[in-house]
Amino acid sequence: MDPMELIREYKEKIEGYLIEFFAEKKKKLEHWSSREACEILEEYTLRGGKRIRAILMVFGYKLFGGMGEEIIKAASSLELIQSYLLIHDDIMDQSELRRGRKTVHRIYEDLHLKNGFGGSPKRFGENMGIILGDLADAYAMEILTSSDFPPERKVRAIEKLNEIIEYTGYGQIIDIYSGMVDNFGEEDLLLLHKYKTARYTIEGPLVLGAILAGHTGEGIENFAIPVGVAFQIQDDILGLFGSEEKLGKPVTSDLAEGKKTLLIIKALERSSEEERRIIERALGNPALTLEQLNEVRKIVRETGSLDYSREIAERLVREGKEALNRLDVKNEEIKKVLLWFADYMIQRNY
Amino acid sequence: MDPMELIREYKEKIEGYLIEFFAEKKKKLEHWSSREACEILEEYTLRGGKRIRAILMVFGYKLFGGMGEEIIKAASSLELIQSYLLIHDDIMDQSELRRGRKTVHRIYEDLHLKNGFGGSPKRFGENMGIILGDLADAYAMEILTSSDFPPERKVRAIEKLNEIIEYTGYGQIIDIYSGMVDNFGEEDLLLLHKYKTARYTIEGPLVLGAILAGHTGEGIENFAIPVGVAFQIQDDILGLFGSEEKLGKPVTSDLAEGKKTLLIIKALERSSEEERRIIERALGNPALTLEQLNEVRKIVRETGSLDYSREIAERLVREGKEALNRLDVKNEEIKKVLLWFADYMIQRNY
Repeated sequence: MDPMELIREYKEKIEGYLIEFFAEKKKKLEHWSSREACEILEEYTLRGGKRIRAILMVFGYKLFGGMGEEIIKAASSLELIQSYLLIHDDIMDQSELRRGRKTVHRIYEDLHLKNGFGGSPKRFGENMGIILGDLADAYAMEILTSSDFPPERKVRAIEKLNEIIEYTGYGQIIDIYSGMVDNFGEEDLLLLHKYKTARYTIEGPLVLGAILAGHTGEGIENFAIPVGVAFQIQDDILGLFGSEEKLGKPVTSDLAEGKKTLLIIKALERSSEEERRIIERALGNPALTLEQLNEVRKIVRETGSLDYSREIAERLVREGKEALNRLDVKNEEIKKVLLWFADYMIQRNY
Repeated sequence: MDPMELIREYKEKIEGYLIEFFAEKKKKLEHWSSREACEILEEYTLRGGKRIRAILMVFGYKLFGGMGEEIIKAASSLELIQSYLLIHDDIMDQSELRRGRKTVHRIYEDLHLKNGFGGSPKRFGENMGIILGDLADAYAMEILTSSDFPPERKVRAIEKLNEIIEYTGYGQIIDIYSGMVDNFGEEDLLLLHKYKTARYTIEGPLVLGAILAGHTGEGIENFAIPVGVAFQIQDDILGLFGSEEKLGKPVTSDLAEGKKTLLIIKALERSSEEERRIIERALGNPALTLEQLNEVRKIVRETGSLDYSREIAERLVREGKEALNRLDVKNEEIKKVLLWFADYMIQRNY
């Protein structure tokens, strides 16, 4: 079984279901402004994305013996959760673009300007963004509750999904504070990665799939949490050292946003007073230059902070894979795919 | 059975459960910033409110033969949904106060100022407000899914609850557009009231209770929707003619916000050109004077628009009560309470 092909296949099916869902949804709406909102959500959700969470939910389901196609529908709910969180994130970060196109609050802002409405276009855009995010969450819950699984499994899945959303929220709060409080250290950072990435992106989806297969998913966290944290550390490395075309966003942005990554935390710990000042001048500086970026890169390399992050990521992936190898599962093929996936996560360069 | 006493009793029990929920929740949180968020949500949720939605959910449950106390827990979820929507509303309306105390985004804004954090205090406050609203929704779903009811009933309740939230969102969108588009008429307005008030405040809670009692709640909408729309019309009357102390907010605010109520729509239809200009100058004018307000009140009275709104509200309540009288229910005492409640809704003056 070629993992990439399997991933492509599920991705296509998930997108197929989402198209169907939106077509049905639009038919039922009475007011033009509801249809407008639904169409904007549809375009935003379908404009791209790796569908990694939905695909992992399908993997979690198959890993524990789940069969049949209904999981595609249930797993698609995670893509609407992703829209929910991204739409709100876009407002928080004041982002203009997402996957190369306008963010939801910017779409509405432009609608406001085009129509010459009264009041503030920015306020209008953000208000609509808040509502459309909330709508995407309601759509996600609708998809999950209406999927054809035994009710007790669905109740547990909904419970788990809301726990994931809850902890993603706590993670987002830690993330916001990370750039603000002075004593933000490695421990806070690892909790942030656990909540915002490991649980939300890896562990949550796998456990959701396991639950719908009639399993608790117990033990999978020993694979998913370390691999998820490693994934985020790799993401932070790409955020500082990646190339602009591959990432689809400026590599200065993590630094300019003041993100205290493991790279930065360790470099600050190990740097001279002068190097420290260079980092501090760059961190959270919206007018960051490429020269400053390269200086920070150099310090992160020379203090050994880059190697430190890489080693932690590799160790975590190793631990995760060992835990998965020990785990008693129903589908050895999918286990192999997940082992491949763990390596892939930290080798990727986009 | 004295309805007011029953309402007081349920209100107390619901608040008792919410206190318990937050105490348990705080114990489980690992990071100081999660506990801070949880405490702010707790204070916001418990600082007041009539608990009308949760109480109606208990009524819906008893009306269709539900027994026992577990419904108190399940119904409390609606108070967290209310926090969810109000916290986001407060941001959208840029409100400083809610129930006499600071709104969530203002609490965080002040925290930012007090601590001298970098960046914009307003942005920080609104971002935290968006997240805390989302957290309140996740808490609500947790309460409902963990309540002790048969799984198939819970699945249907969660489905219904998310449908309510979805339509509240559509209602909110119509509400925002209402002050902007020129051709906003009576039909749009009635759809807005149906979504944002009748379904969310009256029909939804009653049906949720019915579902948990093992009933579909079919037929209750013929009571709940008209009474809910009447409730909103009465609310709009209070918003223009009420007294400041009783409402706890300035009576100019509906007009200043540009809310196109039935009162305004009808008055515009029936007014002379000069009166029309007076209304248009007042509508959506943030610097509205008391003199302008009184002029608009006079026009609304003299064009018969006030009587028109009152008559519609009374007719709707009458229709609703007739439908409830015809409905086959399991608890005649609760039916009487709901009939009383329908009259109470349009007689209230706060």
